[in-house]
Amino acid sequence: VRRELSRGLNFNRPSPLEVHCAEQFLAMIGRADMVKFTKDGSTADTAAVKLARAYTGRKRVALCADHPFFSYDDWFIGTTGVPGGTLPEDVSFTSTFRYNDLASLQAVFDRHPGEIACVMLEAERNVPPAPGFLHRVQALARAHGALLVLDEMITGFRWDRAGAAQVHDLTPDLSTWGKALANGFALSALAGRRDVMELGGIRDARERVFTLSTTHGAESVGLVAAQATMNVYAQEPVIEHLYRQGARLRAGLQQAAVAAGVADRFTISGRDCALFYGTLDHEGQPSQPMRTLLLQEILRRGILAPSFMVSYSHSDADIDYTIDAVAAALPTYRRALEAGSTAGLLVGPPVKPVYRRFN
Amino acid sequence: VRRELSRGLNFNRPSPLEVHCAEQFLAMIGRADMVKFTKDGSTADTAAVKLARAYTGRKRVALCADHPFFSYDDWFIGTTGVPGGTLPEDVSFTSTFRYNDLASLQAVFDRHPGEIACVMLEAERNVPPAPGFLHRVQALARAHGALLVLDEMITGFRWDRAGAAQVHDLTPDLSTWGKALANGFALSALAGRRDVMELGGIRDARERVFTLSTTHGAESVGLVAAQATMNVYAQEPVIEHLYRQGARLRAGLQQAAVAAGVADRFTISGRDCALFYGTLDHEGQPSQPMRTLLLQEILRRGILAPSFMVSYSHSDADIDYTIDAVAAALPTYRRALEAGSTAGLLVGPPVKPVYRRFN
Repeated sequence: VRRELSRGLNFNRPSPLEVHCAEQFLAMIGRADMVKFTKDGSTADTAAVKLARAYTGRKRVALCADHPFFSYDDWFIGTTGVPGGTLPEDVSFTSTFRYNDLASLQAVFDRHPGEIACVMLEAERNVPPAPGFLHRVQALARAHGALLVLDEMITGFRWDRAGAAQVHDLTPDLSTWGKALANGFALSALAGRRDVMELGGIRDARERVFTLSTTHGAESVGLVAAQATMNVYAQEPVIEHLYRQGARLRAGLQQAAVAAGVADRFTISGRDCALFYGTLDHEGQPSQPMRTLLLQEILRRGILAPSFMVSYSHSDADIDYTIDAVAAALPTYRRALEAGSTAGLLVGPPVKPVYRRFN
Repeated sequence: VRRELSRGLNFNRPSPLEVHCAEQFLAMIGRADMVKFTKDGSTADTAAVKLARAYTGRKRVALCADHPFFSYDDWFIGTTGVPGGTLPEDVSFTSTFRYNDLASLQAVFDRHPGEIACVMLEAERNVPPAPGFLHRVQALARAHGALLVLDEMITGFRWDRAGAAQVHDLTPDLSTWGKALANGFALSALAGRRDVMELGGIRDARERVFTLSTTHGAESVGLVAAQATMNVYAQEPVIEHLYRQGARLRAGLQQAAVAAGVADRFTISGRDCALFYGTLDHEGQPSQPMRTLLLQEILRRGILAPSFMVSYSHSDADIDYTIDAVAAALPTYRRALEAGSTAGLLVGPPVKPVYRRFN
């Protein structure tokens, strides 16, 4: 990025850099013919919906309700607990189904025959897919003429260099990428089948789609950062490191939970490369106060962790430090469980869920 | 940017950098209480619509049809010649009016009483506002309980450090900014009145709005680039330079057009700080082939100019070089006018309008 800064960063016309980055990206992820770069995940997912609507001539989106975030745009955010400012007429074209519940997706197709433009989900989050689930989702989508859109924002460059699609040997029609792609620099991507993506291009005979057109989507900083990041992925054992450190972290956290006698109330889920944690109260219910108490107690010890995503920078010492911080926090967590309350233990108000209608 | 790169660039929580950049931005533009940063103009304009809908409890947008681009999202792009993939149910809530035609805006309010959430326009493009037009638009919006959203993507940091709002002494309820703000680095901004913006915050008692939440909206590169850019605006005569060089360019181009005998067919419009050009055919109609011919002939001479926007980097020599390139191109342009056709003069197909349904 430093080197590129002196070469100019935002041009009137597409630069070779954009082509080179696209080629490198497509070679790394496989399973896609074309890619369009943008700046954030929301815009990539919304563009996927637009392309799917144009390709199928249909309006409705079937969305996995167990995956927490796809876009701040109406078609998604209107289905959450924060629909303020969205158009109900737009939101009404989104239907939801449950992860690992093929019947719930079948029900969406049954309720709206010939109306589903695409099925959108992450490959996996806290819970692994039931055997065959992802391929059955794809088969169901295909049988009904709908596209499969895989959101790889978190899984991409983490589950595998080529994302969760590679892990599960799944080839979605469209996929969206970001986060690790440029290692913190601003870049996201919409990738997919040529015959779908070409709708947004200048060579196709079908009706055009104004997919994405941005002033900054192809500025050099994001593109060269992605190239440098992909070079590291190609040459170094990034993915192996994530799984190894994640496994160490999971084992240490679970051991600490057992030692503190809270293993059924402080739970670790997800793949080793992307760990989530659950904070349950004395009755076993997910609890924001208990979550806040854990956050507070590990923050006291220098750890800020809304989840336990490891990175390629995390050394053994970092992992050990994290485990020690959690281990030191858990006795306080246990006191709250035993008291049946966090009263007197929290220094501030409990954290609130993201999707709340009021503050 | 180089210096900031070593300090980390994307954090789990908002950084002081975001606050400092917000304070500097608000001090520079005045006329706004709060700002939210994002990456591109489309996302800022769409967020303005969402906030306006939430604030007013209404759905409809009144949009100036003479301003070419507000967003790739359905509510705008569906009103253009490229509606492919958009939801008609969404697009149906956008009404359009004409610039400098207050009656056309009045007609929108008359057709949809109590339904207009916001009026959105640029302050000025090719044509200056008729005396009082902008303030009458604002008064009309206010009288009907609608918000005024001013798109300052092009005018901001160009008409004036504080945008076209400052030039016209207009205080919109919301405004959107980008492009020159970070001098080519990726940053855009949604600014506005506190009581509207707070709907997207965590301190308000009203129903919340999930305005914008992005992984990359506040990464350091864009923010420090904006800060550095604003420092230059504060300390150096950037705006004066743009007007001076633009005036020289306009005078030179018009002189060249007169000399070539094509002054009524190759026209310059806009403010000196942001010049546009028109390419008319032998019958005086806007012509894509004639535009292509001009682009081709100046490109031969090293000038790529979809418009004639000057920048702070443009020296007298650059301006003279541009004028000379156009002057050298105009005899060919005149031949086409005299022939009534570009036949035999174009080396490729004519450029196509952006908003076309088919390629």
